[in-house]
Amino acid sequence: MKKIITLLFINLFAFNLFAQLKPQDFNLNLMPWPKSVQIQDGFLNIDKNFTINVISNSDLNSKIYIASTQFLRNLTNKTGIFIDQGFVNVTVKNNKPSLLISVEKTAEIKLGIDESYEISISNNQIKIVAKTDVGAMHALNTLMQLLTVNNGSFVFPTVTIEDNPRFQWRGLMIDAARHFMPVEVIKRNLDAMAYVKLNVFHWHLSDDQGFRIESKKLPLLTQKASDGQYYTQNQIKDIVKYAGDRGIRVIPEIDIPGHASAFLTAYPELASNKTRVNKIERYAGVFNPTLDPTLYETYKLLDILFGEITPLFPDLYFHIGGDENEGKDWSENVSIQNFMKKNNLKDNHELQTYFNIKLQKILSKYGKTLMGWDEIMTDDMPKNAIIHSWRGKHEGLAQSTLIEAAKKGYKTVLSNGFYIDRMLPASHYYATEPIGDIKLSNKEKANILGGEATMWSELVTPLTIDSRIWPRTAAIAERFWSSKEINDIESMYRRMAIINSDLEQTGVTHIKNKQAILRNISNYQSVETLNNLSNISEPFKIYSRNNGGKEYKTYSPFTLFADACNVDAKDALHFNSLINKYLLDHDKNIKSELLAYLNIWKNTDKELQILRAKAPIIETILPYANRVSKTAKIFYEGLQSNRLSKQQFEDVITLLELKENPKDNLDVTLAISDSLKQLAEFLTNN
Amino acid sequence: MKKIITLLFINLFAFNLFAQLKPQDFNLNLMPWPKSVQIQDGFLNIDKNFTINVISNSDLNSKIYIASTQFLRNLTNKTGIFIDQGFVNVTVKNNKPSLLISVEKTAEIKLGIDESYEISISNNQIKIVAKTDVGAMHALNTLMQLLTVNNGSFVFPTVTIEDNPRFQWRGLMIDAARHFMPVEVIKRNLDAMAYVKLNVFHWHLSDDQGFRIESKKLPLLTQKASDGQYYTQNQIKDIVKYAGDRGIRVIPEIDIPGHASAFLTAYPELASNKTRVNKIERYAGVFNPTLDPTLYETYKLLDILFGEITPLFPDLYFHIGGDENEGKDWSENVSIQNFMKKNNLKDNHELQTYFNIKLQKILSKYGKTLMGWDEIMTDDMPKNAIIHSWRGKHEGLAQSTLIEAAKKGYKTVLSNGFYIDRMLPASHYYATEPIGDIKLSNKEKANILGGEATMWSELVTPLTIDSRIWPRTAAIAERFWSSKEINDIESMYRRMAIINSDLEQTGVTHIKNKQAILRNISNYQSVETLNNLSNISEPFKIYSRNNGGKEYKTYSPFTLFADACNVDAKDALHFNSLINKYLLDHDKNIKSELLAYLNIWKNTDKELQILRAKAPIIETILPYANRVSKTAKIFYEGLQSNRLSKQQFEDVITLLELKENPKDNLDVTLAISDSLKQLAEFLTNN
Repeated sequence: MKKIITLLFINLFAFNLFAQLKPQDFNLNLMPWPKSVQIQDGFLNIDKNFTINVISNSDLNSKIYIASTQFLRNLTNKTGIFIDQGFVNVTVKNNKPSLLISVEKTAEIKLGIDESYEISISNNQIKIVAKTDVGAMHALNTLMQLLTVNNGSFVFPTVTIEDNPRFQWRGLMIDAARHFMPVEVIKRNLDAMAYVKLNVFHWHLSDDQGFRIESKKLPLLTQKASDGQYYTQNQIKDIVKYAGDRGIRVIPEIDIPGHASAFLTAYPELASNKTRVNKIERYAGVFNPTLDPTLYETYKLLDILFGEITPLFPDLYFHIGGDENEGKDWSENVSIQNFMKKNNLKDNHELQTYFNIKLQKILSKYGKTLMGWDEIMTDDMPKNAIIHSWRGKHEGLAQSTLIEAAKKGYKTVLSNGFYIDRMLPASHYYATEPIGDIKLSNKEKANILGGEATMWSELVTPLTIDSRIWPRTAAIAERFWSSKEINDIESMYRRMAIINSDLEQTGVTHIKNKQAILRNISNYQSVETLNNLSNISEPFKIYSRNNGGKEYKTYSPFTLFADACNVDAKDALHFNSLINKYLLDHDKNIKSELLAYLNIWKNTDKELQILRAKAPIIETILPYANRVSKTAKIFYEGLQSNRLSKQQFEDVITLLELKENPKDNLDVTLAISDSLKQLAEFLTNN
Repeated sequence: MKKIITLLFINLFAFNLFAQLKPQDFNLNLMPWPKSVQIQDGFLNIDKNFTINVISNSDLNSKIYIASTQFLRNLTNKTGIFIDQGFVNVTVKNNKPSLLISVEKTAEIKLGIDESYEISISNNQIKIVAKTDVGAMHALNTLMQLLTVNNGSFVFPTVTIEDNPRFQWRGLMIDAARHFMPVEVIKRNLDAMAYVKLNVFHWHLSDDQGFRIESKKLPLLTQKASDGQYYTQNQIKDIVKYAGDRGIRVIPEIDIPGHASAFLTAYPELASNKTRVNKIERYAGVFNPTLDPTLYETYKLLDILFGEITPLFPDLYFHIGGDENEGKDWSENVSIQNFMKKNNLKDNHELQTYFNIKLQKILSKYGKTLMGWDEIMTDDMPKNAIIHSWRGKHEGLAQSTLIEAAKKGYKTVLSNGFYIDRMLPASHYYATEPIGDIKLSNKEKANILGGEATMWSELVTPLTIDSRIWPRTAAIAERFWSSKEINDIESMYRRMAIINSDLEQTGVTHIKNKQAILRNISNYQSVETLNNLSNISEPFKIYSRNNGGKEYKTYSPFTLFADACNVDAKDALHFNSLINKYLLDHDKNIKSELLAYLNIWKNTDKELQILRAKAPIIETILPYANRVSKTAKIFYEGLQSNRLSKQQFEDVITLLELKENPKDNLDVTLAISDSLKQLAEFLTNN
């Protein structure tokens, strides 16, 4: 038996087909979904004799050996099998290994390399064939995702996969400026990125809240503008190598001329407003401190800085930010205004262009090509710059600056629609289609390099950042890698749930740290009730958690209940889908499941009240818990009796509409509210 | 009301006194216990206006500011309070801060500095007074341990504490050779060490399984002998600074002339046995590869190596290992035997002394004093060397090499009795008294510098090492810091349970990773049953897990059930104490508690059987789970009816004596066996 599944099939029939094959124990949980998958009805068993060998016609560097040794280690750890082979290296020779990796050559890590690969698994051997080591590493991650259980044993299913990416730029931006992220945070996220085939780490290294990269020539930058929290040049090199070993490019960003509060704390003489006392910003928002683009000294200093740090980053592109400069300080500075007149610059926008062009020349001197947020797309900007699109009327669609840039002849990368710090559900980002039905010439289409998820860090710390990036970024990775026809939301959620577990194995702490936060909130009594409540609660979305940027300072606690809650709250997703089903067919078993949930939630307030004496933080959760319990009680009775009275209906609607009551100050929203309202309608009009 | 608690009081009455004071909500959970504590009946409330100021007559370096800023951050994170002050630094001036820290001077981090401090807390201010910044940092950790809840709010109790350590050398050794431990593992353990006032990090950097420190002059050491897993010199510097910022000295160890399998893989020409093919060792044990001490080239190379790496470590002492060289390769090498005759060295021991003396001269050239395991204590060893005692007839007692060394006039450090990798309960290590009742002169006493817990890493990885070090090492830290009269086991366990939670806040992963291992074993189904089972199961003790060193290779899986189990298994401790009580007074409530436990355990096998289909690793747990369930069922019925038949008695004894059945290959022991046997006796003879 052999079934060929092509792209079209997948979309229309794939999961039904799988279900016909082996409904219980067969499932492909690949993310991103490959270009082509063929399935045969068989398995390769994994035992202690599992071996790996790498062959090549040319000399390979160490990367593929490191990656395949790591694969062995991960396979051992996941399966508990004492695999005999410990290492894969150039001296290992094995005529008939379990996994044979054929690689043509080592790829230099840069834009546009060949990332394609093929996997074919028979019941006695796996073959990986790739043009580059990067392609082979992608194959290893696909293979790990294929690991499954059949007949009580760990196996790989017999499949044939051909794969390559839709977009060549598939990135994750981490803001290490607003909250500093130590080396291990970056490394574990690089491991997770590699697992879902992301290949660009965009490193936001400076902002109003801190300058995070060591300059030996300009030591004031870290002495005065980092609170002691920055990457040494050795750490930078270490991370760039670590990323490269995983096929990931590193794009650094120094955000200028705006977002410069920290920068100007070190060098106040370069400020556009010379009277303001510069200090490191502690709040979130858009601030006025801006470099003075009319001063010779500004460019002299930037020349020194870029001369020193550009060699740390082997990639061709260097991101200079350039966003959100509202120009207030420029308009209010007479000498800047005079300079503009003299140089025939008719507004602040033209002055910023003047700045960017000078910057572009400095970068060019050091062999770098400029990249910047879409504000830099002005008439005089050279066409080799990359425009990073973050604005648009509709996320990711026609009116985005992405399309404008592509049409103007710029290479461009999309982040509009991929702002994961807005805390929207995975389905939202997954549905952001970069090109859609827009008619573009082939050349214009080629200008669209790909996209980046952006993790701005106003509200995240090393403790919580992983749970804000993962697993949603896995869905975004699929958007960047897979065909646009791969867009079924239900399938995405099903697969993402599995990938979510795999991600813990890569080292990210999104699952672990949730429990640690809840333990702290309960003062190490018991987390069960808090955990249940958090699984139907989601943190405030679209920046409403940080009202005007003034609710949280950089050093406020991020160990609160909202920090333990995740987007796509687990039990809420399940409960909502149960209600949808129940409203369709009033199935008795589903009703029991709903009652079981409600039965748990109705005691939330009482249980938390008991913990509260020894756990002061719980006090802040009680009003919310109380509303949840009251609501659950009414629904529990109503569902049992198939009936809500008018009064009960009004009560629950009132309770549910209080769901985002800012007076709670809890910054979470009850993620089952909408479906409960539907249930209320049903039970009242029953 | 004011109660003075001195050392004598503590031992005899302290916890009763506390109980009289405020039975429910007052407790001091300090570890290590201070020299003197006075308690008043009051509290200082913590709110957002909490402030810290540091004053000094002299210029302080940044350490105390970093530490007090970190204290603010930890206090914010633990309490969820939005404390206004974000940073403590030299420019902060505050006439009436909540916490006033007075420090005389910055201490150079070396042996024998003043670590004393005083804390006095009134209901409106905390004062810390210390001679050195290191003393003040100890005070901050004591203060954090004082944090408690009163009347629903976070408070510090009004106490006065005077404190200084019994021993000046309070160490933790981490073996980063047998399993490599990345930088973040070391850093998080340094944070935890500081929290319990340990002040020496002994870093075991080379062994048969790997050479873990970069040498630029001898690059083969890491190219051939590290599997790519080693610390760069920059990472070493980073860690030494990180440790120093926390008042912790770093003692590096390069273990020679034995334990040299990896070393000789890089430099086979220095081997005592020239015919053996040298390779990195993958098993655990004592191996023969040994440097040839008769070769000029050996000393030439060691001179280059020590010349290069000693400057990375500012401490005076350098540990050269020197242990477990059984001399087989020396005895079998004719040329070495001839050398010995020529130089009048009558046995291998004298040859090793010859080697050590030459080494001592090299180290001395680079300003270092030699430290080594107790094998180095031979007649010619200069008296300024430190003898690291790891052997003795009885752990930590009279016949240990510690006392011998002290009497011979050597400075000496005790690890015999503190081998935490032997997986013994905290009570065992806590009861190891370095000096005891042995009569020593004051001078001899002064030679005993302190001790070190040793974490050998044959069976631990970055995933599990924290749970093997903590919380037991907190009890050892108390042994090193506090008076020998502080020795009540029950009080230690009570306080250690609280400190255990605090330790998670310092960043160690001992709690988090247990759950992650169980999630992996269950293949992300449910961990509840596994968790319950693991809470009465302990990993095999005293190296019996790794039979002959041949059961586990360095790259075997350490993600098994035994790896999720801890010494002092939580529910076992509780259950055993319940049985003790029940056998005394047959209390009905205690009987109910016992039945509740048994009721949970009796379904273990059924519940795991359900998970097993999707989780192959569970197969290995089933025979053990089955025995536990059978046993629990018999006891559940027997306890309900207050009666076990002779047959039932025989059945449970058989089941319980199978508890360490090696055929299980599960490497855990049922930690409630002994108390269940007592219960069985009682119920049978009832």
